[in-house]
Amino acid sequence: MSGQLIPSQIPDGASVAPAGVPAEPAVFSLHRGGKMEVRATVPLRDRADLALAYTPGVAEVCSAIAERPELALDYTWKSNTVAVVTDGTAVLGLGDIGPLAALPVMEGKAVLFKQFGGVDAVPICLACTDVDELVETVTRLAPGFGGINLEDISAPRCFEVERRLQERLDIPVFHDDQHGTAIVLLAALRNAAEVVGRELPALRAVISGAGAAGVAIAKILRDAGIGDLTMVDSRGIVSADRADLTPVKAELAAFTNRSGLTGGLAEAMRGADVFIGVSSGSVPEQIVATMAPGAIIAAMANPNPEIHPEVARKYAAVVATGRSDFPNQINNVLAFPGVFAGALSVRASRITEGMKLAAAEALAGVVAGELAPDLVIPSPFDERVAPAVTAAVADAARRDGVARL
Amino acid sequence: MSGQLIPSQIPDGASVAPAGVPAEPAVFSLHRGGKMEVRATVPLRDRADLALAYTPGVAEVCSAIAERPELALDYTWKSNTVAVVTDGTAVLGLGDIGPLAALPVMEGKAVLFKQFGGVDAVPICLACTDVDELVETVTRLAPGFGGINLEDISAPRCFEVERRLQERLDIPVFHDDQHGTAIVLLAALRNAAEVVGRELPALRAVISGAGAAGVAIAKILRDAGIGDLTMVDSRGIVSADRADLTPVKAELAAFTNRSGLTGGLAEAMRGADVFIGVSSGSVPEQIVATMAPGAIIAAMANPNPEIHPEVARKYAAVVATGRSDFPNQINNVLAFPGVFAGALSVRASRITEGMKLAAAEALAGVVAGELAPDLVIPSPFDERVAPAVTAAVADAARRDGVARL
Repeated sequence: MSGQLIPSQIPDGASVAPAGVPAEPAVFSLHRGGKMEVRATVPLRDRADLALAYTPGVAEVCSAIAERPELALDYTWKSNTVAVVTDGTAVLGLGDIGPLAALPVMEGKAVLFKQFGGVDAVPICLACTDVDELVETVTRLAPGFGGINLEDISAPRCFEVERRLQERLDIPVFHDDQHGTAIVLLAALRNAAEVVGRELPALRAVISGAGAAGVAIAKILRDAGIGDLTMVDSRGIVSADRADLTPVKAELAAFTNRSGLTGGLAEAMRGADVFIGVSSGSVPEQIVATMAPGAIIAAMANPNPEIHPEVARKYAAVVATGRSDFPNQINNVLAFPGVFAGALSVRASRITEGMKLAAAEALAGVVAGELAPDLVIPSPFDERVAPAVTAAVADAARRDGVARL
Repeated sequence: MSGQLIPSQIPDGASVAPAGVPAEPAVFSLHRGGKMEVRATVPLRDRADLALAYTPGVAEVCSAIAERPELALDYTWKSNTVAVVTDGTAVLGLGDIGPLAALPVMEGKAVLFKQFGGVDAVPICLACTDVDELVETVTRLAPGFGGINLEDISAPRCFEVERRLQERLDIPVFHDDQHGTAIVLLAALRNAAEVVGRELPALRAVISGAGAAGVAIAKILRDAGIGDLTMVDSRGIVSADRADLTPVKAELAAFTNRSGLTGGLAEAMRGADVFIGVSSGSVPEQIVATMAPGAIIAAMANPNPEIHPEVARKYAAVVATGRSDFPNQINNVLAFPGVFAGALSVRASRITEGMKLAAAEALAGVVAGELAPDLVIPSPFDERVAPAVTAAVADAARRDGVARL
C-alpha cells in the first residue's frame, strides 16, 4: 500500500515564506490541504477483502438494490450522508464570492456535521446560480445522498430552490441559513422568556432583516405562537401596503405587524419585548432605550452585533449574540447536526415544521434546569445537545408521518 | 460530543433474519451502512478550534481564495479529491441498473482510491443519462473537485461525455473503464512480449469487443507502437467498408486491420500473436488453436473469461484474465489510484496520452526483474505499484506541459 499522499502539502512557491518573512498565519496553516478526508470503514487488506468490498462481491449488492431500491439505505452510505450544497452567492458576511471560494466554509460545515451529529457530509460547490439550474443539478446528484443541506445561497432564490427541491426529492432538504438559525433562536427565546417570566404569546417581537434567516425566524415564531411580530427591512416596516414587496415578503406581511405600525426600526422597537437582529445594520442606543422593561435582545450580526452586548445589557434582561466570546451564542451548530441525524435515523422524507419546533424545544430543554440571564442556550460543546435534538426530531418525524423506519 | 451515530445500522424489518432463517450473507453484512465515511483532519475540540476551522477564521481563507482562486488548491481538500461519477448505465456486467444501484460500486472505487493512492474520492451517482445533461451537471459540480473519474457510463455516450468534459474543465477527466483497463493491459502486454522474446511492433493483436475498454486499448496499443491490430465486434471485423460503424468505430477502422481481413473472430484470430478479450462472448477452442505459436492471451471478461485459462494455456505462452483467482490479473486498481495521485500531485490540467503510456511503463517496470509466464503484472497489493505509477505520471505531466506545480 502506498502512503496516504497529500499532494497539496508539497511546499510551493505561493505558500512557503522565504527566510525573514513572517510565517503563515495559524488559520492558513490549519487549512493547508483542507480540513477533511474520506476513509474506508471496511477492511481492504487482501484479495478476499477486495472480492467482498469490490468485484465480484459488490455485484450481488448492486443487483439487490436494482431490484429493491430501498435496500440502498441498508447497504450504502446514503442513509447517513448529506450533500452540503452551495452556489457561493451569500457566503458568511462576504457575499457572492463564488463556489470555489465558498469551499472552506462547506468543508467546515461538513466536519461539524460529523463531529456533532455523526453524519457524513460532502461539500458540493456548484458553478451555477439560476434557480432552474440549481434545482435540476441537485435533483440529478441526489441519488447518492440521504439529505440535502443548502448553504449560503442568497435570498430570495434560496426560498424557491428549497421549496422546489423538496417537492421533487423524497429526502430531507434543509436550508440551514434559514431553519438552523430559526431553530436555535427559538430555543434561546423560549428560555429567555422563562428567565423573564413571560409567555411567548404575550411577547411582541421585532425582527430586523428580512433575508433568509429573518424569514425563517418569522415563520417559526408564528408557528411557536409568538404574540406579535414586526419585520423591518432596509426600507422600513414590512406591511401589506408597501408596493415593493417580493412574494416572500408579501407572505410575511400577511401574518406580521398586526398592530399596523408604520415607519422604520424606531417605530417598530418602541415598547417591543424582543429584538432579533439578522441584518448587518446597527441600532442606535436611543432606539434600544425605547424597548419595554425586561426586554430580550438577540443581536446576531457577525462580527459586529446590531447592538453591542455592553449597550444591550443596559436595557435588556437577556442578551444573545452570534459571537462565541459573549454569553448566549446563537450558533447553528446547535441545530443542524441533530436535525439531520434525527431525520436520517428514521429515513424521513422531509423536515416538517413540527420537526423544527421539536428541535428547538429539545435544544431549549437541555439547559432548562440551569437557566439564567447568561445561560439561555447550551454551549456548542455541550454533549447533551445532539442526542436530545436527534431524538426529538426523530420522534416528530414519526408523529408527522414522514418517517420510513 | 455525541457518539458517531450510524442510523443505517439500526436493525430494520427488511434486513434482520427471523429465527430459523439463515444469517445475512457475508457480502451484505460487510456492506451494512456503506463502506466509507468522511472525517475531519483538523482538531475540533473547543471554541478556539472552531474559530479557526469555521467562523470567524474561515472567512479569511475564503477571502484569499476569492482574490486568488489558485489558492483553493493550497487551502481546501480540492487538490486531493476526485469525484467518481456514474449514471449507472453500464455497471460491471450488470448493465443499466441506474445510479442508485451503482452506488456500492462507486463506494468501492472511492475506498480503493484512498487505500491505494491516498486520494479522497466521493461517489456521485447522477439521475440523468443524456450526454448534454451529464456534461452540464458534472461541469457545474466540478469546482469542489481536483479531478473527475468517470465510471460505468455506457458506450458510445462515454466517449463524448469524456471528450466534452475535458474540453470544458481544467482538471483531469478520466474514464476508468477505458483508460484504466488500457493502461494495465498495455503493461501486461509489454511484459508478456518480453517473456516470449518479442517486440511490440512485431506483434499482430486481435481485440474482441469494441466498447469502452476495447476502444481505449486499441488507441493505447497504437500509441505504444503495436505492429498490427484487428478489432472484432458483434458484427465481425471492424473495417472501413462496413456501413454500420459509429463515429468512434470509424476512427478505429482508420488505423486498425491493416491487412484488410474480412469475416469474424475466426478470420481475425488465425495466426494472431495476441488475443485481447473485452467482450462477454466466449471463443471456441478450435479458433484459439489457430493462433501463432507462443501467443499471448488476455481474456478479461468477468466472471467468465472469453477463453478459460486452462484452455488458453494449451495454446499460449502467457495467459492473463480479469480474475483474482488466476495468475496475471488485469485489475484497474493497478492504474487509477496512481494515475490520479500523480496528476493531482502536480496539479495537472488533464491526463495526456503520454501520462497513460508512462503509467503503463512504470507499472510494467515494477516486476521487470521477476518476469515469468505467470508474472507479467504486479499484484494489486504490491506496495511498489502506486508510488511507481504516481511518480511516472507526474513526470510525464511535466514533460507534456500540463503540470501546474
